[in-house]
Amino acid sequence: MKSRLLTPGPSPVPEETLLELARPVPYHRTSEMRQLLAEVTQDLQYVFQTKSPVLTLTSSGTGGMEAALVNCVPPRGKVICLIAGRFGERWRNIGKVYGAEAISITAPQGQAVSPEQLAQALAQHPDAVAVSCTLSETSTGVAHDVAAFGKLVAKTPAVLLVDAISALAAMECRTDDWYIDACVTGSQKALMLPPGLAFVSVSPKAWDLIDRNPERRTFYFDLKKARKDLEQNETPYTPAHTLLMGLRVSLKKIRAEGIENIWKRQARTAAAARAGFRGMGLELFAARPADSVTVAKVPDGIDGSALLGKLEKQYGLKLAGGQDNLKGKIIRLGHMGYIDQFDVLAALAGVELVLKEMGYPVEPGKGVAAAQQVWAEAK
Amino acid sequence: MKSRLLTPGPSPVPEETLLELARPVPYHRTSEMRQLLAEVTQDLQYVFQTKSPVLTLTSSGTGGMEAALVNCVPPRGKVICLIAGRFGERWRNIGKVYGAEAISITAPQGQAVSPEQLAQALAQHPDAVAVSCTLSETSTGVAHDVAAFGKLVAKTPAVLLVDAISALAAMECRTDDWYIDACVTGSQKALMLPPGLAFVSVSPKAWDLIDRNPERRTFYFDLKKARKDLEQNETPYTPAHTLLMGLRVSLKKIRAEGIENIWKRQARTAAAARAGFRGMGLELFAARPADSVTVAKVPDGIDGSALLGKLEKQYGLKLAGGQDNLKGKIIRLGHMGYIDQFDVLAALAGVELVLKEMGYPVEPGKGVAAAQQVWAEAK
Repeated sequence: MKSRLLTPGPSPVPEETLLELARPVPYHRTSEMRQLLAEVTQDLQYVFQTKSPVLTLTSSGTGGMEAALVNCVPPRGKVICLIAGRFGERWRNIGKVYGAEAISITAPQGQAVSPEQLAQALAQHPDAVAVSCTLSETSTGVAHDVAAFGKLVAKTPAVLLVDAISALAAMECRTDDWYIDACVTGSQKALMLPPGLAFVSVSPKAWDLIDRNPERRTFYFDLKKARKDLEQNETPYTPAHTLLMGLRVSLKKIRAEGIENIWKRQARTAAAARAGFRGMGLELFAARPADSVTVAKVPDGIDGSALLGKLEKQYGLKLAGGQDNLKGKIIRLGHMGYIDQFDVLAALAGVELVLKEMGYPVEPGKGVAAAQQVWAEAK
Repeated sequence: MKSRLLTPGPSPVPEETLLELARPVPYHRTSEMRQLLAEVTQDLQYVFQTKSPVLTLTSSGTGGMEAALVNCVPPRGKVICLIAGRFGERWRNIGKVYGAEAISITAPQGQAVSPEQLAQALAQHPDAVAVSCTLSETSTGVAHDVAAFGKLVAKTPAVLLVDAISALAAMECRTDDWYIDACVTGSQKALMLPPGLAFVSVSPKAWDLIDRNPERRTFYFDLKKARKDLEQNETPYTPAHTLLMGLRVSLKKIRAEGIENIWKRQARTAAAARAGFRGMGLELFAARPADSVTVAKVPDGIDGSALLGKLEKQYGLKLAGGQDNLKGKIIRLGHMGYIDQFDVLAALAGVELVLKEMGYPVEPGKGVAAAQQVWAEAK
């Protein structure tokens, strides 16, 4: 049986990237490796849409978030945390460890924090050092209006820290135009690589804060050291350089298609996924849905875990379920990176067939037809 | 031309492990992945020779060192740092960032810190919380007598933190028998993987210290969280799980040969490498040489960088040079993991040929013959 990985990360890796990962391991301090880092950094700047340096860290995306926060925010610094799920909470939890004062603005599950809520918080806390948020909240499928957040934060002394881990290269994200001061992503989402690398862009405003931060209590995640070494196209410590070799291949694919074309294509695919779920009678979970992942509610009377198990066992379709209190209640369909429209069509087809088998009243073909309508009407 | 990577890390990766790294990427939260982590953790415990948990971190080895130190040592805690080169210094630099008080015991370059020096330091600083050291100081080729260090530290309340990054699975290292409280290694040395993973064993004595440490200011490198998740065969954040898949393959190779057999084989290879360099008239740099890397002085009048360049360009032999003030003055030949005796023979042969070409008076064959003698006499 053919397997299809359709989770919101890790996402599938193109075959030519996989083969690159199987190449003999080179030494990591050579002119070829410096050339490699220079090349991928430039391509990352294109994908981030930023002129600022993009720093490569060997860690998961969470390590990139910690790097952004601990470098920018001094102990007891105030951080306005915009929280719409467990990944928004992660910023707060990282801040807590470092003694930051968190002001939490929390949206109900499935909802987004609004720019109005942020404006109010900024007015109440003019001493805030940073604002943290999540572009695509993978746990609920919610997208935030980061463009609007950026405009508000840019007028204050605070910096905007954005977790774009499951968003970057999957949906519109304009780091410089949106005034994002530290934009974080990971390798295993729309960058089409296995996990192991994190990337952080740092704006001039954030560098200014970092340079004035007296107590940056981190060694491995010291962004000043990373910036200094990047000037020589080096990293402070041994990087996962075979992943960087793979990244070069994946980034070339992104450049060849063009980042704005990818945003448009994935937005259409997301619209089709939403139409598909609705077409088979399911409700969407996210009030403001992301373009990288679509989350549908499991209908009453259907066992969500059994549904996912059948999708995988009978059809080779690996989707994700809910986490924590959402376990069994939602299904999460990733569409980013190397997942294309026909993979999504396959997922919708599988969900229809399994729902029918489980006794849910669905007319086979209605979901996939609704998705097809979206693609057919797309310009 | 055939290429041979003979640096003290990254080291070559076996072909079957490379192919594993090119396999399709699976989802990371499944029973198969939990089974994988359980299996590699058990095999790592065997390689570490420990009954304590071995925690897997997605980072370079330096991240593993930071994890060991920041979890064990409270702010203003006193750390006796045994320093014989830049990697010994790294422990001190990490401690500095976290406000630890470092007591530095420094050996001249090429020398090791002696157990007597440590005994004296422990007597002078009975309030030391930790002792840091390096089993194989890759920058100079020096090995420390960690077995003796362990006996001394075990009698005190301090914990022994050991950087075994370029040593573990390449030379004798008995974590439990030697009373090592936190033993750190990385994936890209004798474990025969690309870089990207660090591993840290933690003894009951170290856990006790960690549990009593009020201010562990780290999120990503929180070892308590890693221990808790490991009980469910999980990691706190997305691990570089394709590297873990490769690790399983490499660890099976190690188990098949037997760790003590590997130590013996590599000790013979190290002895042969030393005999080979001496045989061609070169001096060794390390007074107490490691079994994972052999460091020879570049003879007077020979340009060390040119020597390394010719080895690579003319013979495909990639050896490493010196770092910092040792640049151009030493050559470093790694022999760990998937580098075997005939690879080392090739390196010695290449060095002879290039030295002769550069006008150094060497009789071709003397170095390789001296190495052969060692292997021929080995039992």
